[in-house]
Amino acid sequence: MAQDTNPRTPLTLAVWQCTSLPLQIDANLQRLQDAAARAHAAGAQVLLTPEMFLTGYSIGAAAVATLAQPRNGAYALAVARIAREHSIAIVWGYPERGADGQVFNAAQWTCAEGAAVLHYRKTHLYGALDRAQFSAGQVEASNSQLATLHGWQLGLLICYDVEFPENTRRLALRGADGVLVPTANMDRYDIVPQTLVPARAFENQMVLAYANYCGTEGSLRYGGLSSVVDALGQPLAMAGRDEALLIATLTPEALAHARREQTHLQEYVQRIQQGGKDDGKG
Amino acid sequence: MAQDTNPRTPLTLAVWQCTSLPLQIDANLQRLQDAAARAHAAGAQVLLTPEMFLTGYSIGAAAVATLAQPRNGAYALAVARIAREHSIAIVWGYPERGADGQVFNAAQWTCAEGAAVLHYRKTHLYGALDRAQFSAGQVEASNSQLATLHGWQLGLLICYDVEFPENTRRLALRGADGVLVPTANMDRYDIVPQTLVPARAFENQMVLAYANYCGTEGSLRYGGLSSVVDALGQPLAMAGRDEALLIATLTPEALAHARREQTHLQEYVQRIQQGGKDDGKG
Repeated sequence: MAQDTNPRTPLTLAVWQCTSLPLQIDANLQRLQDAAARAHAAGAQVLLTPEMFLTGYSIGAAAVATLAQPRNGAYALAVARIAREHSIAIVWGYPERGADGQVFNAAQWTCAEGAAVLHYRKTHLYGALDRAQFSAGQVEASNSQLATLHGWQLGLLICYDVEFPENTRRLALRGADGVLVPTANMDRYDIVPQTLVPARAFENQMVLAYANYCGTEGSLRYGGLSSVVDALGQPLAMAGRDEALLIATLTPEALAHARREQTHLQEYVQRIQQGGKDDGKG
Repeated sequence: MAQDTNPRTPLTLAVWQCTSLPLQIDANLQRLQDAAARAHAAGAQVLLTPEMFLTGYSIGAAAVATLAQPRNGAYALAVARIAREHSIAIVWGYPERGADGQVFNAAQWTCAEGAAVLHYRKTHLYGALDRAQFSAGQVEASNSQLATLHGWQLGLLICYDVEFPENTRRLALRGADGVLVPTANMDRYDIVPQTLVPARAFENQMVLAYANYCGTEGSLRYGGLSSVVDALGQPLAMAGRDEALLIATLTPEALAHARREQTHLQEYVQRIQQGGKDDGKG
């Protein structure tokens, strides 16, 4: 973990909880345009959307294969226009066509100037639906990168990834101050936003933002409860079951306070630097 | 992780939340006798007590040094008598004098026949008070053992240890069905019983039992909220701020159901068996 020399300034996140409009890419881009305008008007510097937002999540392997785009394809161009028009970074989910033809459940961070600054491929596929639609991203350095905004180093995970403590820990060890998580979480798994997401924040002294769908998509009934959780595991904002645009501001003072109060990550780093077998394999 | 061939039968846990009586060892043994009788009468096969129950937790380094006993010392003999008399296993915390003179924050599992079947030394010391009083136990195989009761394989952690996901993961990888956690958690850290303990259960498909103090000890104000959490992270029983004896029965059917519903541990095992870099150091 790098020494902390970042001059952070307050950072306002917008987390958009919305219904899924499967297969309606033009309509989703229109909705994204509207959400970006509202998020910018509310003072946000970055807008986080749910998993596979552009195409919908539960669309089947055939549609995923048809709709998948490379990182720098038409979707990226369309989102870049919206980001530039509204001067806001956007984290958006989509099916990514890799160079070898594989399709990944991916998220991309497009900065306010329209450039792609961060790519992520979901590493932990959930259940038969995910596995039918996607190849798994690799747990490796190139898929564990961070982007910096207002001095905050932020990483990405997608949905099921955040339920494994090793994934947030890995990003924390790379210096993440927070992790943004697009998700498509069903209402029978409320324990994830209510318990696991705050646990990840607390045990790593990092901020978590979790953007879920609400409503239904085919036979799936999403649970909402999107949230922004501070580095002590306390909610700064949390949605209910309905559509919502959460706005929450992170401050350097609150992060520093959390890291004085709790030191789990720092102690874990000391242990592994001393060669301790503290990696779960002991 | 070993193949699961255990013929488990229902197991009833008693989790005792009580005040601390620092330095009053005879009175604590008398209270333990009473709690063991009540737990046995309620059908429990094992009684879990808070951290450092026999001597009190916040007693200072001098008292700890004076009162520390070896594993097979006078405390073990006294608890063995109580366990035999009431036909119940007892997990009890005490300051352990090691062979080299070091003193550890320890817990011991005495079976209903009076034998010591499991020893544990707290590995993650919390704050100045813990560090002044104790040496840290090592994260190693000899300090990560399990005991079997009614076919359930159970491990021990103490207080702050459970806040690090690597510690429950390590015991889960050794085949633990559950982890018993004596603790001395202050009321400003309610997030631990409310959020971290259920997270540990859910992410490992294991049962957690967490036995805390209530009331005050010197300047410490304990938070209670002792609990038994099932392998889906749902509370089977939870205390409030006052003294309580929680009784909860674990069933093989509920454990099997949890492990069909959620498979985080199984997937993690597959990843590390495939040599994946999923250990937080990636």
